[in-house]
Amino acid sequence: MPTIRVTTPQAAYDVTIGSGLLRTLFPRLRKLTAPKPLDPQNLFVITSPEIWALWHSAFLASFPADQLPTTLFLPAGERHKRLATVESLAQQLALAGADRDSILLAFGGGVIGDVTGFLAAIYMRGIGYVGLPTTLLAQVDSSLGGKTGVNLLAGKNLIGSFHHPLAVLTDIDLLRTLPPAELRSGLQEAIKSGIIRDPKLFRFMEQSADAILSADPTALQKVVTASVRVKADVVSADEKESGLRMVLNFGHTIGHAIEAATHYRKLLHGEAVAWGSIAALHVSLNRGRISHEDFARMANLILRYGPIPPFKIAPTPQAAAAKLVALTASDKKKRSGRRAFVLATGIGSTEISYDVTDAELLAATTAMLNTMQRA
Amino acid sequence: MPTIRVTTPQAAYDVTIGSGLLRTLFPRLRKLTAPKPLDPQNLFVITSPEIWALWHSAFLASFPADQLPTTLFLPAGERHKRLATVESLAQQLALAGADRDSILLAFGGGVIGDVTGFLAAIYMRGIGYVGLPTTLLAQVDSSLGGKTGVNLLAGKNLIGSFHHPLAVLTDIDLLRTLPPAELRSGLQEAIKSGIIRDPKLFRFMEQSADAILSADPTALQKVVTASVRVKADVVSADEKESGLRMVLNFGHTIGHAIEAATHYRKLLHGEAVAWGSIAALHVSLNRGRISHEDFARMANLILRYGPIPPFKIAPTPQAAAAKLVALTASDKKKRSGRRAFVLATGIGSTEISYDVTDAELLAATTAMLNTMQRA
Repeated sequence: MPTIRVTTPQAAYDVTIGSGLLRTLFPRLRKLTAPKPLDPQNLFVITSPEIWALWHSAFLASFPADQLPTTLFLPAGERHKRLATVESLAQQLALAGADRDSILLAFGGGVIGDVTGFLAAIYMRGIGYVGLPTTLLAQVDSSLGGKTGVNLLAGKNLIGSFHHPLAVLTDIDLLRTLPPAELRSGLQEAIKSGIIRDPKLFRFMEQSADAILSADPTALQKVVTASVRVKADVVSADEKESGLRMVLNFGHTIGHAIEAATHYRKLLHGEAVAWGSIAALHVSLNRGRISHEDFARMANLILRYGPIPPFKIAPTPQAAAAKLVALTASDKKKRSGRRAFVLATGIGSTEISYDVTDAELLAATTAMLNTMQRA
Repeated sequence: MPTIRVTTPQAAYDVTIGSGLLRTLFPRLRKLTAPKPLDPQNLFVITSPEIWALWHSAFLASFPADQLPTTLFLPAGERHKRLATVESLAQQLALAGADRDSILLAFGGGVIGDVTGFLAAIYMRGIGYVGLPTTLLAQVDSSLGGKTGVNLLAGKNLIGSFHHPLAVLTDIDLLRTLPPAELRSGLQEAIKSGIIRDPKLFRFMEQSADAILSADPTALQKVVTASVRVKADVVSADEKESGLRMVLNFGHTIGHAIEAATHYRKLLHGEAVAWGSIAALHVSLNRGRISHEDFARMANLILRYGPIPPFKIAPTPQAAAAKLVALTASDKKKRSGRRAFVLATGIGSTEISYDVTDAELLAATTAMLNTMQRA
């Protein structure tokens, strides 16, 4: 079973990817905490009612019947990614007797992973947690890298901590119950991994699109493993986004603006990133950093993994582009007034530019919106 | 001006102690962030209306008149040490444009320090903050060591982070406006520092009690400096309380129980610790770890810095002691069922014991309560 190591100055942990991981959960957790004995009473599952309904019997299969972990529920959806949710879960943990030796199990998608990781970061000034991502997006992206947190009314992810899991157990089987749109959304982040750093993954996704899109487990395992390796390498080299880690934001400058403009309701994250990636490819093309041929291959692969839902935020593409570019002004990635923008420089290679102008972004975003109208 | 360095695996910073620090704040902050230029627009003061009313002109004296920092208010009092307060402040920071380069200035007592440090720990996954403690308790204790956080309904300080300040500027002048009871409460933590690690400080507090209790600045500066050195040494040796740092909890096992039993309303923290220290001295005496003479000197010094308000939580000392010992069961310092208890083994030396029984605690706490009735 593929195991990929993430090593940062703060922590080191393994990401294990495969089938049937969930059914062998308890012995895996025991191995993780060895030589200390593992008391299931110290384990707290944080999950959603929907996921638990689908997967609780597989989840609990490996536990002794009289020693089950405690389950705490978090309603699904981004609007619950708030401090009030964290406080309520912390209060439940305290009343259930969780202490500094307790371990949280984040069993869900991105919201559950972010909230649980943050809860673990701040409960009694930090306890351990294990990631058990159930969506493709969480498996290839958000379960890795230690970024945890919640939203403010003033903006997404403005509250958070760097807190790494003790381990990530990525069970491919869980993707079986994933809605197709969420599968495709996650695949867009995998394409991004190919574009920024892994031409082999990119080619595999070109050649095996049918198998991947029909959720063939062998094909998905290959995609997840390669994507995890890209993210693990980048995060290991640059934990706190001082440099290299920024390449993971390819497509995210305009992607975040699209999410904000549509109030995080119309598009899934991967869908917004897909449009944002096309805009970023246009910037790269207009600068002459990629060939027309590579541009076409990359843009086509993104569209191949569609349909990506269109959105309308203004009467004309020009007006919509202006609105999106204006929204990038508050991008968190900006430091001391300079915006870091990730350019593609080929299939599998990128460059960070600090001098992409609003005019360039405007032209590229308009071009992306024209593509959308044609699609 | 005395400067004491705190060095931990996570961070290193200076604590500067003296008079007139506040009036030279801006150049001091500029030196701290050099060679990067310091834009006062990136500075956010977190304080209470009361403190600001007393000290704003001294605080702002060193800033250019057209470049003042932004001030955010936090009402005074432990009941505001909650996540809702942190969220409201974070929202205000975001709306005021605070970014990853912003620096918070924690201008207040323990609650303001704990909340501001925690806010800095989690705003945009961590920004810098500077401690400007205004109470003696904050100056000698809570402003140092990087423990930040807030309370849950289920218990105090159950939510938090280790997040060290960029610097602590401890201005003795601020103690001039401190209510006498708060001064005495802080002095109890200074006595604790003497008891656990600094016989010279202990002797100074015996010999100069009149000057110290009348808030003589020279005497107070000596007490604060020695106390800070004790805490800085301990924290530098053991950031996260795996061993040595526990000695700082001398008197806190029963002290915390007293605070809980009186709902954090009747006694100031230092007052509860004073009674808790007397109980801890009784445990040490009953075990034969300290002489009758040293016991008397330590207990007398604690009482000399009173009056320590009495409290009544049960009809008899026996019943009250039982109640307090029962409350120690949930002590956060307990790990895997064992309670760490700090024993005095002389003036300036301690030992951590893991086998103090409830019966011993009961006897010692009853003895302390009898002292209270006589006092």
